[in-house]
Amino acid sequence: MDTLLKGQIQAKIDQKTKPLGSLGMLERLAVQISGIQQTLTPALNNPQILVFAGSHGIANSGVSAYPPAVTAQMVLNFLQGGAAINVLTRQAGMALQVVDAGVDFDFGAAKGLVNMKVRRGTRNFLEEPAMTTQECSLCIERARTLVQQVAGTGCNVIGFGEMGIGNTSAASVMMSKRLQRPLADCVGMGTGLSDVQLAHKLAILEQAMDRHAAVGNSPLEVLQTFGGYEMAMMAGAMVAAGERGMVILVDGFIATVAYLCAVGIAPEIADNAIFCHESEEKGHRILLQYLQAQPVLQLGMRLGEGTGCALAFPILRSAVAIINEMASFDSAGVNQKEI
Amino acid sequence: MDTLLKGQIQAKIDQKTKPLGSLGMLERLAVQISGIQQTLTPALNNPQILVFAGSHGIANSGVSAYPPAVTAQMVLNFLQGGAAINVLTRQAGMALQVVDAGVDFDFGAAKGLVNMKVRRGTRNFLEEPAMTTQECSLCIERARTLVQQVAGTGCNVIGFGEMGIGNTSAASVMMSKRLQRPLADCVGMGTGLSDVQLAHKLAILEQAMDRHAAVGNSPLEVLQTFGGYEMAMMAGAMVAAGERGMVILVDGFIATVAYLCAVGIAPEIADNAIFCHESEEKGHRILLQYLQAQPVLQLGMRLGEGTGCALAFPILRSAVAIINEMASFDSAGVNQKEI
Repeated sequence: MDTLLKGQIQAKIDQKTKPLGSLGMLERLAVQISGIQQTLTPALNNPQILVFAGSHGIANSGVSAYPPAVTAQMVLNFLQGGAAINVLTRQAGMALQVVDAGVDFDFGAAKGLVNMKVRRGTRNFLEEPAMTTQECSLCIERARTLVQQVAGTGCNVIGFGEMGIGNTSAASVMMSKRLQRPLADCVGMGTGLSDVQLAHKLAILEQAMDRHAAVGNSPLEVLQTFGGYEMAMMAGAMVAAGERGMVILVDGFIATVAYLCAVGIAPEIADNAIFCHESEEKGHRILLQYLQAQPVLQLGMRLGEGTGCALAFPILRSAVAIINEMASFDSAGVNQKEI
Repeated sequence: MDTLLKGQIQAKIDQKTKPLGSLGMLERLAVQISGIQQTLTPALNNPQILVFAGSHGIANSGVSAYPPAVTAQMVLNFLQGGAAINVLTRQAGMALQVVDAGVDFDFGAAKGLVNMKVRRGTRNFLEEPAMTTQECSLCIERARTLVQQVAGTGCNVIGFGEMGIGNTSAASVMMSKRLQRPLADCVGMGTGLSDVQLAHKLAILEQAMDRHAAVGNSPLEVLQTFGGYEMAMMAGAMVAAGERGMVILVDGFIATVAYLCAVGIAPEIADNAIFCHESEEKGHRILLQYLQAQPVLQLGMRLGEGTGCALAFPILRSAVAIINEMASFDSAGVNQKEI
């Protein structure tokens, strides 16, 4: 961010009728959002959450507590308005779009569903790369079109959520590969595995990493080899949103791994990213530390869908209202610190 | 809470289309609010924040970074809508009332101000008890009337905030006395003291505690000896709100010390209290640990005014919406965990 502007933003906040720095995270968010928008009067317009959905070949290898069919069932639940993200976006006053990046189900034409399906699910990366390079490029290309459409609605802030049974497995392997960290640091209970199931998941994923040991750790190689279509599309959409100067709301573990790829492709989007919450999924805390991210919320959640984004959004909106609406010491006739 | 009801509430949440326990804090809040209201379909109606204001005699002993006159100036700022709590209650859709419990200023009749003034500021507890037993009783009595009026608006959830230059000093001494903990654990930077000023504050407060060493540590004795009128009235209002089955939103350090007195007077209100955030003020974390409280937010704030309540409220409203609006596995046709 431009140093002059940053100083002006901080000076504006410091003149508000409150002790210096006493609004903590709200002040940091106000500074960041003002910086993204290059203005002293930021605004969050037509906020939207995109839930990217995709089926995973690895889900057939017993790595999840839920059967693979749940991915499509949950998409239908989103479309009927019954899932957590439906409830929470209604509460937050955010629009919601569900993006079929590659679900193994034919939804036909459904209201609220954006059909960007690349294939009916990825291949099982235990046996072969999850997607082809063409499919990976197609995800990123379609993501760009999608973000263009979203920007056309006047939206300048997108929350990124996902649904895909098996995608904590994909995300764990991707994190381990990208950061060259032991897989055990990156694998967690997902949607709720027992200890025995967790050990199985870890063993399966170790095997998958061994199989693809020769693959490089560039963002695109990692996305292609282990990713889901929903993750590749999400990473592409984050890059496109960043290029357009939008605020990027990052949800939980899977969204943060997609961000890890996105920021590898386009490092400048780091200025635009707000990490909405720290999830209970084991790898997330480590990943946030690696990214030096300060998550807005710590609510012990591990659901995905963009639920953390919807819950954090009112706090962002409040941060923006503070910089725009609060009185200054001068305007309110309040004495400042004496010393 | 009635064990049968608690089981029913948990069962209702566990049937929602999400992994068990995956909404973390939201689930705990949904259980608590349902329990307070004794229902499977809770509702937060006409939410209101009460900001109790009072002047402190101890503020004349150089314990705060701001001059004592700021208490009245900030009340005027509240009435003009320019303070942080005004902005944040507007964002959260909460009503705001400012209660003059004992500010050293004559406001006359002002819109949005409830005149419950006991006296124009407490006495300096460095020299004598802050208030008389009659004044302390009067605070608690007036608080009961106030809560009755608030309940009459259909409100079933009150956020408790405060304004009073010098009141972190009062709160620190009260915490130390009530919990028999070293004063150094309870004294922090308040609105922004330097290290030298902090050492002065600690020395002054040690002196005050020595002077009143013979005073007992019952809630009323502590409130009377060291409290502010705003704190005594807040404690009384918490007790009254709890008796009426209302949800009690506790803000930061000062509000939590008022709660510590309130729960000493009426232990059953513990079921009704939600701790909205963990503040940066040193004693607050220790106090929350003592109370085994899990604060909703950790935003590094230290402002008071009820700002933490206003920021946490959308999360509470979301918790209630989750239990009321989310689909169940059955209703949505989603498969449950396989194992």
